[in-house]
Amino acid sequence: LSGTAAYDQLCAHLRELAALEQVAGLLTWDQETQMPKRGAAQRAEASGAVAAAAHRLRVDPRIPEWAAAAEGCAPGRAGRVNVAEALRLHRRALRVPASLAADLGRAAAQGQVAWDAARRRSDFAKFVPALSRIVELKRAEADCLTDAGGDPYDALLEEYEPGIASRDVANLFDQLRPGLRDLRARIAAVAGPDRPGQARGRFPAEAQIALSRRLADVFGFDWSAGRLDLAVHPSASGTRGDVRITTRVNPDDPFESLYSTIHELGHGRYEQSLPEIQVLMPAGTAASMGVHESQSRLFENQFGRSRAFCDWLHGALRDAFGDTGLDSPDALYRAVNAVRTGFIRTEADEVHYNLHVMMRFDLERALIRKELEVAELESAWNDRFWQDFGREVPDAGRGVLQDVHWAVGLFGYFPTYTLGNLYAAELHRALCADLPDLGERLAAGDLGPVLDWLGDRVHRQGRLWPPAELIARACGRPADPATLLDYLETKYAGLYDV
Amino acid sequence: LSGTAAYDQLCAHLRELAALEQVAGLLTWDQETQMPKRGAAQRAEASGAVAAAAHRLRVDPRIPEWAAAAEGCAPGRAGRVNVAEALRLHRRALRVPASLAADLGRAAAQGQVAWDAARRRSDFAKFVPALSRIVELKRAEADCLTDAGGDPYDALLEEYEPGIASRDVANLFDQLRPGLRDLRARIAAVAGPDRPGQARGRFPAEAQIALSRRLADVFGFDWSAGRLDLAVHPSASGTRGDVRITTRVNPDDPFESLYSTIHELGHGRYEQSLPEIQVLMPAGTAASMGVHESQSRLFENQFGRSRAFCDWLHGALRDAFGDTGLDSPDALYRAVNAVRTGFIRTEADEVHYNLHVMMRFDLERALIRKELEVAELESAWNDRFWQDFGREVPDAGRGVLQDVHWAVGLFGYFPTYTLGNLYAAELHRALCADLPDLGERLAAGDLGPVLDWLGDRVHRQGRLWPPAELIARACGRPADPATLLDYLETKYAGLYDV
Repeated sequence: LSGTAAYDQLCAHLRELAALEQVAGLLTWDQETQMPKRGAAQRAEASGAVAAAAHRLRVDPRIPEWAAAAEGCAPGRAGRVNVAEALRLHRRALRVPASLAADLGRAAAQGQVAWDAARRRSDFAKFVPALSRIVELKRAEADCLTDAGGDPYDALLEEYEPGIASRDVANLFDQLRPGLRDLRARIAAVAGPDRPGQARGRFPAEAQIALSRRLADVFGFDWSAGRLDLAVHPSASGTRGDVRITTRVNPDDPFESLYSTIHELGHGRYEQSLPEIQVLMPAGTAASMGVHESQSRLFENQFGRSRAFCDWLHGALRDAFGDTGLDSPDALYRAVNAVRTGFIRTEADEVHYNLHVMMRFDLERALIRKELEVAELESAWNDRFWQDFGREVPDAGRGVLQDVHWAVGLFGYFPTYTLGNLYAAELHRALCADLPDLGERLAAGDLGPVLDWLGDRVHRQGRLWPPAELIARACGRPADPATLLDYLETKYAGLYDV
Repeated sequence: LSGTAAYDQLCAHLRELAALEQVAGLLTWDQETQMPKRGAAQRAEASGAVAAAAHRLRVDPRIPEWAAAAEGCAPGRAGRVNVAEALRLHRRALRVPASLAADLGRAAAQGQVAWDAARRRSDFAKFVPALSRIVELKRAEADCLTDAGGDPYDALLEEYEPGIASRDVANLFDQLRPGLRDLRARIAAVAGPDRPGQARGRFPAEAQIALSRRLADVFGFDWSAGRLDLAVHPSASGTRGDVRITTRVNPDDPFESLYSTIHELGHGRYEQSLPEIQVLMPAGTAASMGVHESQSRLFENQFGRSRAFCDWLHGALRDAFGDTGLDSPDALYRAVNAVRTGFIRTEADEVHYNLHVMMRFDLERALIRKELEVAELESAWNDRFWQDFGREVPDAGRGVLQDVHWAVGLFGYFPTYTLGNLYAAELHRALCADLPDLGERLAAGDLGPVLDWLGDRVHRQGRLWPPAELIARACGRPADPATLLDYLETKYAGLYDV
């Protein structure tokens, strides 16, 4: 087998694997948007069968053989990334015994059911057995993936954010926390518990969906390569020529679907703009979950919640719903940037959001490193919430039980949310420097030059660079927590006069 | 490994295989109803990856080992069917070399494109190279699957209709053909080329879809286990808890969607009513494509086009569309049973339909048996059409190019349509005997007892019996071509006074 032929065979194998992963994503999308309710049991078997088929491709012993034979023949940086990623996925899959992977799959399914029941009763004790089992299995998985002396949490983090160690994440977060706590406290002292004027009126589902579609046009979503549907949870799935976004509609609050949609459009536009030549290849995938989240947060916050964009949005809201009581772009800007110390991460404003994420990171890292046990988790959560947010958690439903992540074994995922915010702030700083008319463009709902800039520097780079390097190349300097803090200080000092 | 454990492992393997086959069906449904147009290339890779994964499960060498170890331990008839089907699928998959299977997949994809282009120009010569390649590969596949001295066409037929030899099919068809030719000619002599009064008026798409939903209720479709969507081609896919039907809407002719829907509901109700305990197991699948078609044709023709059901349908049409110009159930009955010698199988009435199918069977069987070459196919088609239908084929688009089956390698499928009609007529005879008030029920749109009868005797039998035996057990006697001829004679002698 020649080196080139070996590389070609490796690529065909990787495309087959990626195609199965796309099928897995489609099965989830279908389940959330199309599947009749009695299809659930069969769907679980279908998803399991596709996962098993993908696992078989990952552990194929020909992968290291092809990779060795292709040495020096893989074309360019993309070729080297494809070979390296193939080996990394192969080694990860081999290190976790099939029985452990199967146990994890079952524990995650049971975990979701147990979490759901416990959350409805706000009773953490009910969830302790299932969560303990998951933590035990995730610790075992992390041990399988960790070399002697390594931090076991890093192996889990690597799945979502390759190329960064958790001590570096902790270091970044340590630089962010004091400033965020301080800003939060200053605003809380003047803002009071009530939100400023929210939108009032009637917000029919059809009008909300129509507005979401208009937003998709503004944010460059390609309808010939994607779709938008309603679901219980907003999401984005699929890649390149078939990207599917879901949003939800709250009849009392148009901003819920509006900003969910803009957020998912950030993910969707990224996937649609990945390099076509590397479609279904590792080099053609998103750089990391953190970089993915940087796109969604940039769209949602730095663009969608900017004063400039509120000029455009104010007109669009009037077109969609008539009078909303928000009688100027300024009033709209205040409404969509209201700061309030709530308990729920997914409802948090820009000031509080990262405080939520960073406490979850510390707690889940301690769990995996065996510095914390599940039985102590609720009190650890509540203590930490008091420190960071200055409020008592009233019940587990609004505390430790609020997120599904741990219930289904997603450890190592949370920190990518705040890494995304760090990257988004740095990209925004660079964009403002490169595009002096950014504000006028946003006010006019014209994101063309912005999308071109992101396409060149982020989207079409695929996975060519580790996340931090990708951002540094795009922005001319590494992401700095001070940039995010400066952005928040400037914005919220202006809004709250603090 | 104990016999019981071996059987359990074999079952888990078979469920995984069936789950992947369900995924393949879902990918097709999604492609027809949901997928954005630029998703086609990725979808082809996804479908290929799922097909390859299913193939790997079929050729797993543990299948014969499990089957041998489970000898005598498989529970009941269903257990024996599961083991036998596992071995049959395994042997078939092993006998066709992977390279031939891959060539067939590619040739089918290219064949569809070539057929589409040739059909648009009505130019069979343009299609000859692609079809020749497919026939060559299907002949090779049939040879792989055929023991020395066997009929190669039988191996292809077995894929869709297990347990029947093509000489038996030919024998059944020989008994049917003279009566059908004779009935057709007698009607043509009095009917003229024009259809009797068709529906007139406006038929908005929404009203057609609402009527389709009402029909789904009448024909026992379980909405908690299925859905109905619009697509270019009517279809039914999925099984048990997740059955998906598509229909199409012709703004000028409400009967197109109406009878397409009823037809697909026959398929859908069958899949929803298969034995739950055997879901995703061979014993829990439909008995054959012929039996499947018997359910759809029974729903469509013996029920949906009956004089009694026209009492109910006449009211439902008035509810949906107001005045259609069909001012009585009798007028409706004549309109939906109009006989006309057309060229297109899918538009054919009950009298002509089987003549279409039987000529395709003879032609495709001759192709596979190397008694006919592709270059001679168009003239063979046109000669035969003259014999059976008494009209000259005006062009290839209305002749040899009308159906997609051969373009994508579906040889052996056509005869199941007429086997389905034979079975449907026999089931109808038995139903009339067992349910003396069948006519009153149909007139009232109450199919409860009919659905119970079919559920007991056909649907919940799954694949426990070979098709002919299943029908014989359900009806108390084997399917007889005379039953179908009697049904058609009685119905159409009354309608056309011949």
